[in-house]
Amino acid sequence: MKSQLLDLQKYLGENNYDIAYISDPTDIDYFTGFYSDPIERILALLVFPDKDPFIFAPQLEVESVKKAGWDKDVFGYLDNEDAFKLIAGHILDVTKSAPKVWASEKDNLSVQKLEAIKQNFPDAEFPGNLSRYMEKARLIKTPEEIKLLEAAGDEADYAFTVGFNAIKEGRTEQEVVAEIEYAMMKKGVMHMSFDTIVQAGENAANPHGGPEKNPIHKDELVLFDLGTVHQRYISDASRTVAFGKPSDKALDIYKVDLEAQYAAMDAAKPGITAAELDKVARDVIDKAGYGEYFIHRLGHGIGTSEHEFPSIMEGNDLVLEPGMCFSIEPGIYIPHVAGVRIEDCVHITENGNEPFTHTSKELKYID
Amino acid sequence: MKSQLLDLQKYLGENNYDIAYISDPTDIDYFTGFYSDPIERILALLVFPDKDPFIFAPQLEVESVKKAGWDKDVFGYLDNEDAFKLIAGHILDVTKSAPKVWASEKDNLSVQKLEAIKQNFPDAEFPGNLSRYMEKARLIKTPEEIKLLEAAGDEADYAFTVGFNAIKEGRTEQEVVAEIEYAMMKKGVMHMSFDTIVQAGENAANPHGGPEKNPIHKDELVLFDLGTVHQRYISDASRTVAFGKPSDKALDIYKVDLEAQYAAMDAAKPGITAAELDKVARDVIDKAGYGEYFIHRLGHGIGTSEHEFPSIMEGNDLVLEPGMCFSIEPGIYIPHVAGVRIEDCVHITENGNEPFTHTSKELKYID
Repeated sequence: MKSQLLDLQKYLGENNYDIAYISDPTDIDYFTGFYSDPIERILALLVFPDKDPFIFAPQLEVESVKKAGWDKDVFGYLDNEDAFKLIAGHILDVTKSAPKVWASEKDNLSVQKLEAIKQNFPDAEFPGNLSRYMEKARLIKTPEEIKLLEAAGDEADYAFTVGFNAIKEGRTEQEVVAEIEYAMMKKGVMHMSFDTIVQAGENAANPHGGPEKNPIHKDELVLFDLGTVHQRYISDASRTVAFGKPSDKALDIYKVDLEAQYAAMDAAKPGITAAELDKVARDVIDKAGYGEYFIHRLGHGIGTSEHEFPSIMEGNDLVLEPGMCFSIEPGIYIPHVAGVRIEDCVHITENGNEPFTHTSKELKYID
Repeated sequence: MKSQLLDLQKYLGENNYDIAYISDPTDIDYFTGFYSDPIERILALLVFPDKDPFIFAPQLEVESVKKAGWDKDVFGYLDNEDAFKLIAGHILDVTKSAPKVWASEKDNLSVQKLEAIKQNFPDAEFPGNLSRYMEKARLIKTPEEIKLLEAAGDEADYAFTVGFNAIKEGRTEQEVVAEIEYAMMKKGVMHMSFDTIVQAGENAANPHGGPEKNPIHKDELVLFDLGTVHQRYISDASRTVAFGKPSDKALDIYKVDLEAQYAAMDAAKPGITAAELDKVARDVIDKAGYGEYFIHRLGHGIGTSEHEFPSIMEGNDLVLEPGMCFSIEPGIYIPHVAGVRIEDCVHITENGNEPFTHTSKELKYID
């Protein structure tokens, strides 16, 4: 069994839980090495403090669970069977008497599934929320995970090269996206980690917008934000380049944003808090007079998703430690003028940090 | 207000609900015309039997809600605020006294959110499950929805043309996928509705597999399953073509599967049940001796997702009615030999059905 699973068993025992019902696909992967999104079907990992865990899965996934290296029990079910009644039977085979205190990922578990469990175990109680445990457990990445994040970062660097070469007068943002994703697929990278963003000129001033059909013109900044999925681990990086000769105002925004990004890269090391790191970049932008245009947090955690800890923002007093992985992405967005974002994801090391992407951040001019 | 929302208000009144908490993004879109996936943030539509509804959204989405045409109240919140406390305040402004009987989509609502509601309204009860109401409400598509599904179908037909032209000796399945998605993006179709499937020869015998790096060779069948997203409505269609001269066995599988697909297309009309329709296709395949290789249901509902009603399968006694939209996709998968799937999505009309895709189903030979 993976050490992650042994740690969970220990946690359950120490906190007087009789059983854990794990159903977030990413968490099941974390504990077992098996990943599948069952959509509307039922996939669950049942864990006990002092008995062997088992996986309950759609019948058509049972072979895949075994192939993924799971050597404990796996039980399948067919679409026309009552999944929770079957799960209850398998649990009783393990525990003999009905488990009372249940741990569950409440951020993920639906009310409908909770009620199905309670129907089979009327005395079940659900104190606490295992979602908080998972956030902490996944906060520090292992060396193996960091290798995968590095490989994903290399792919993002390649994607930037393709994207920069694809900029041509009159070509649309969407056409540049098409060139990037086509080149990635030809290399066998079949999934981007999110919809690739290419935004030119004023469009880039809306960080919630996407690539449009509008043609890219000379003398604008062009913002790229992209990432790939490498064996479930993702990359996420941004670069902004100059097509022709952008205005002095646009160039000034770039200079300030880059200074903020470098300052945060220098400051990201063990001992600083997430909030302090956010402030390092924010202070640079504030001082230059662009504070009101930096409208999002400095960064987010990264791993198998970009919705994990740590969040690099005001109010988060978490002290950074080696193995934490997150983005450093200050942005300045001035409506009707231009938008700049420069982003690397990094992992904290013993003395500082190492980025996963290495594409130069000095302003690149494209003719 | 949309008629869908008036219908819900009526349903709430008739079933003695004081309030509905709607949080599935697709359901919010269905009732309001505003779509956004808030990921870990809170987006909710609050509906009352006899008071105006309101939307609660992340502050950065408030303008988009208004732009989408929502003319009732919309309240925003910031990341550092207690969203459910704010929601409770807005509810009390409407209802004056605490609502007791809540309707909610229990398939979607997380236990964590339920507990947050109960913290603010300790006497709240959650009988019933609005997810069942939503499935029924979305079962019959409007003429406007059918137009969008037709437009998505046209895009899928174009994708087949590109894909068939991309087959070349030695090219990999993944490379053919790259050509298809590249051509779609160049036309401005930025999202496929699922990962495009291209599978050649034996690979196609695994309906849960995807495109691989293996080269496509002459004298194999090649299976395509693909779809696009057109203004949130999706297409989903499959065609299988012959590259060179496939074996007699492969050709026989194709002939039988096509006969099964035609039989079901002929039989799909008002009055037949979903289970009966499944059996029409299954009988053809059984009779030809391939019954054990047709290992999935005949079809699934389609709309803004492919995970909606009606499910065309054994045991579903739902009687088909005009406006229902679903796939007809018999498949025959013989391990180590070949796989065939032929699929159109259709909508039931007064007298029969109309498919959303029109690419020929007579076996196409590619040299």
